[in-house]
This record gives sequence, structure tokens and C-alpha cells, in this order.
Amino acid sequence: MGKITGNMPNLLLLSKEETIYRAIIEAARLPELNIVTQIEESDIVLGEPNLIRETLSHLSTLKWIQSTWAGVEPLLDPSLRRDYILTNARGVFGRLMSEYVIGYLLAHERSIFERMAAQRNKQWDKSLTGTLHGKIIGLLGVGSIGAEVARTAKFFGMQVRGYTKSSEASKYVDNYFHGQDLLAFANGLDYLVSILPNTKETKKIVDAKLLDELPSHAVFINVGRGSAVDESALIEALEQNKLAGAILDVFEQEPLPKEHPFWTTKNLTMTFHTSAPSFPEDIARVFIENYQLYIEGKPLKYQVDFEKGY
Amino acid sequence: MGKITGNMPNLLLLSKEETIYRAIIEAARLPELNIVTQIEESDIVLGEPNLIRETLSHLSTLKWIQSTWAGVEPLLDPSLRRDYILTNARGVFGRLMSEYVIGYLLAHERSIFERMAAQRNKQWDKSLTGTLHGKIIGLLGVGSIGAEVARTAKFFGMQVRGYTKSSEASKYVDNYFHGQDLLAFANGLDYLVSILPNTKETKKIVDAKLLDELPSHAVFINVGRGSAVDESALIEALEQNKLAGAILDVFEQEPLPKEHPFWTTKNLTMTFHTSAPSFPEDIARVFIENYQLYIEGKPLKYQVDFEKGY
Repeated sequence: MGKITGNMPNLLLLSKEETIYRAIIEAARLPELNIVTQIEESDIVLGEPNLIRETLSHLSTLKWIQSTWAGVEPLLDPSLRRDYILTNARGVFGRLMSEYVIGYLLAHERSIFERMAAQRNKQWDKSLTGTLHGKIIGLLGVGSIGAEVARTAKFFGMQVRGYTKSSEASKYVDNYFHGQDLLAFANGLDYLVSILPNTKETKKIVDAKLLDELPSHAVFINVGRGSAVDESALIEALEQNKLAGAILDVFEQEPLPKEHPFWTTKNLTMTFHTSAPSFPEDIARVFIENYQLYIEGKPLKYQVDFEKGY
Repeated sequence: MGKITGNMPNLLLLSKEETIYRAIIEAARLPELNIVTQIEESDIVLGEPNLIRETLSHLSTLKWIQSTWAGVEPLLDPSLRRDYILTNARGVFGRLMSEYVIGYLLAHERSIFERMAAQRNKQWDKSLTGTLHGKIIGLLGVGSIGAEVARTAKFFGMQVRGYTKSSEASKYVDNYFHGQDLLAFANGLDYLVSILPNTKETKKIVDAKLLDELPSHAVFINVGRGSAVDESALIEALEQNKLAGAILDVFEQEPLPKEHPFWTTKNLTMTFHTSAPSFPEDIARVFIENYQLYIEGKPLKYQVDFEKGY
């Protein structure tokens, strides 16, 4: 066996959609690249973090892993090696996440579930609908995804608040909050959207105190990670009408166990981690862009800091 | 009784929301304006066309009617007087209509009704969702509302086609079609949206031939007038899966009679003429703007052509 040529980069695909990735990458005719199937030969791995984790210790010549996901938790376990460059998928989910967030915001304003029920009952339901215009949305976390959600919210005439560690990069955020100003950030929001990654600092950041700052007509949306939410506090807020609704795409445990109370919590809508699928055409573009940098010996884009976790 | 002063314009409010309009207009302190309650005294009427119609023949000093609606059908009957200036509400519905159209497009792409059903059945439904990006939307009618829908569709990366009598005013429409090119306009659309007013030319323009040009995954949305649709043809297309869905806000007869087949037609969603409510704050702004022109003796905005019907 052994490498086909001494120095040509060997790419291993570890993805449920290997066939599609192979077709796209072969069609791109990237200079010098071999696509290999032997774990021991590969310098580069493109794939899902959970699949890659299983073979991580056997990748003896590993230099770079490109994740097809934004979240790379399976590779962040402190017991795992960190002697390679890990890049995640970024810049491709913002558009999809924005469609998701705005779609569910409009579903709420337009009472589309209620109107469907009215139709079933043959009721001509003329009750007034709301509008996004002028409403206040607060983004917990404003990275590349949050910036795109902010841009879309601004298009619809919303007021946009952002809570970040320190960055203030998006011009579509009207007011930034940091550190101790979390409760001030949440106070009076019509919509609270968490786009936070799973890190030590974000654990259960959405707790009873934070939810208490929201008006009772507010809706909470989680498209980040389930770990950011105190699930009991959220259930209590919803069941006691302290909150008008929650739209959850992510959960502490996925798939959500059948016995979990979320399935039947009042005004809780769940979407099974489908908000921003990794379409191979999008992710392959990220890989191809990074591969060009790789063979030129330049720093790769979207590098994950193992300590920070994103 | 008689006018309070000889030449000061007298405004009569004929609206279900008279109290709100009175408060807003009084707060605006418009020069010379009296708000009156006597039909015989009024030069100007602001209100709903169906309410105004009942008193139309008694308005002996009538000069101008400002409709709170976009549609003014009740005042267009050829048997009614036309010796006054009729202006309708324009420029205020585009934003609301865009929210409605994009909201229901996203509901379709994101399968939000299907996911709600999955949640009820405690099924972790990971099936892939679609995106608006790259999809083709066709607008039947591109006036001020259509232009705003086009702008919003473009924001989401859609391809936009427009069908108009002759105008090509919106830069957000990629391809315009006119006259005989109706079927070419419809061919291959992912979404067909009718924003047409009720006129002779638009009657049943959405017929079996037009619907046949749409792919079976397409969705039809009607936010214009119900008269533009051949209802039997639409029912047949939906029941035979020639069309994936229809979202109807308007109908030939409103409220829709209980025995109408639309209530239970497959994949048909109805919203009871709620897509773009006339919020008094918005309509009052239109009136105030036109009132300034009125007292300056300048031509009013948004004048309706009684012959054309809009």
C-alpha cells in the first residue's frame, strides 16, 4: 500500500455523504490532491466530527481535519489528541439559520398554527396579526451566524441587540451588551435567540433569572446548543405563561428521549436539529477554499481553538 | 347645523376604527381641518369603502374620499356617482404582504406543519428542509406591493419573475413578462404569487392552463383578489397533486361560505383576508400626506381610475 506519491496530500472522507463529497471534490480538480480510503495514509480528513472521533487515534499522518459541522464537540474531549489543525464549517449556516429564525418569528406573528386550527373548525378567523417591524430581537452570541440573523432582522425593520464576550463586529446590531449586562440585554425583548456554542461560559446561561427579564409575550428560540438552556427553568416559564413560546432546534440530549417533558410542554415547538443542515455543496466550498490555502502553506480559515471550544 | 366655518374642510370618518382615527388626526393638528359627524357637511371622507357606499348619495358637498383599504370595489359600481376624487391606501401594505408571503414560503420550505405533527407523535424528524435561496418566484402583478415582495424575495436570494400589463418599474424583478407571455411566465415556477386587483382583465387569470405550467412541487399564493382564480381548476390541481399547495388570503366570496370545498381541499391553507391589515397609524399617515396636498390645491396621491378599477 503506501501513499501514491510521496508528498501529494491524501484526503480521507469520513462522512455519511461521502459519495456526494467525492463527486464534488473530484469535479473541482484540486491540484495534487488524492482521495484515499486508507486511514493510515491520510493527511487531511473531511467529515463529521462524530465519525472522525472513532478513527482519530489511528490517523498517524494527520495534519488537518475539516469538519462538515459548525459544532465540533466530539473532537474537543480533553483526552483526545490536539496535534493537528481543526477547522469547522463557517460562513455557510448564517443564511439557513436566518431563514429558520425569521420563518418561525413570522409563524408566531402571523399565528399560522392558530389559523390552521381555525380552518379545521371552519371559522373565518379575522383576528389581527402582528408584524416584525419595530419588534426587538436579542441575539445571544453574534458570530458569523448571528451577524447574518442580525442583517435579516434589520431588513424586516427590527431593533437588534447583541450579547457577546467582547466583539462588536456586526453593523446590523444596534446595541451591544457584554459580561455583567446580560439581564439588561434581555430586559424587554420580544424575541430572544441563542446562537451560542457549547462552552464552559455558556452552560445554562438561559436560566430562570434571564427568562424573568423577558415580557410574557416574548418567544425564545434556540439554534445554538442545548447546553445553553436550563431546561427546568424554561419548562416552568412556559407552563406558567411567563413566556409566550419557545422554538427549540437543539437539546442537551439528541435525539430527545421519548420521556422528556419538552415533547408536551405548553407552547414549545421543536425542530429536531434541522435548522441549518450541512449541504455538501456548501461545505465542499469551504473545504476547497481551505485546501488552496493548505497547499500554499498559508494559515487555514475557521480554525477551532481547542481551549475556547469554537 | 351647517358648516362650522365657511371654507374650512370638513372631514367625516366612516370607519370601524373611527375613535382611533380621530385621535391620530386630532393629534396631528392639521391646518384648517374640522372633524364633523354630519354627512351633509363633509367635503372629505376617510373610511372603509363598504361603509362609505351606504351614504354616498347623501354626501352633497363631497370632494374627496380617502379609502382605508387598497381595494375599493364597493365604490366602483357603475351605478354609483364618480364626481369626486377617490384615493386608496397605497405604500403601506407592501411590508405586511412581504412578511406574509415570505412567512408562508418559509413555513413550506421548513415543513413547519409536518414538524409540528412529528412532535405530537414524539418522532425525532430529521428530514431535510429546503431553502428559499435559488428558488423561482413569479409575481402576477407588480405594483407597489409586488415591488416590495420582489425586494424581499431578492434579499433571500430568490429568482424573481414579474407579469404586468406593461410596467417594468421594480429593479428587483429579474425578468418581466407581458400580455401573451403568461404561460411562459408561469413555466417552472417554484412559487406563484397573485397580487392582482379585481378587474375585467384579471378575472380567472389563474386557470387550469396556467396551473398546468407549474411543476407539481410548486405552491400558489393569493394575496390579491379571489376573482383572479378559477376555483374549480385550483381544487382539481390540488386534489390531483398537480400542485403541492395553495395559500389563499382572498376569495370570490368573503367570508367563505361554510359549504365551500376550499375549507377541506387537500394542501390548501387559508388565512381569512388577514395578510395586510389596515393599521390606522399607517392609513392615517397616507391621509395626512394627501391632506397637505389637498389644502395646497395640488394633485392627490394614489388616485383611483374608476375605469381601470385601481
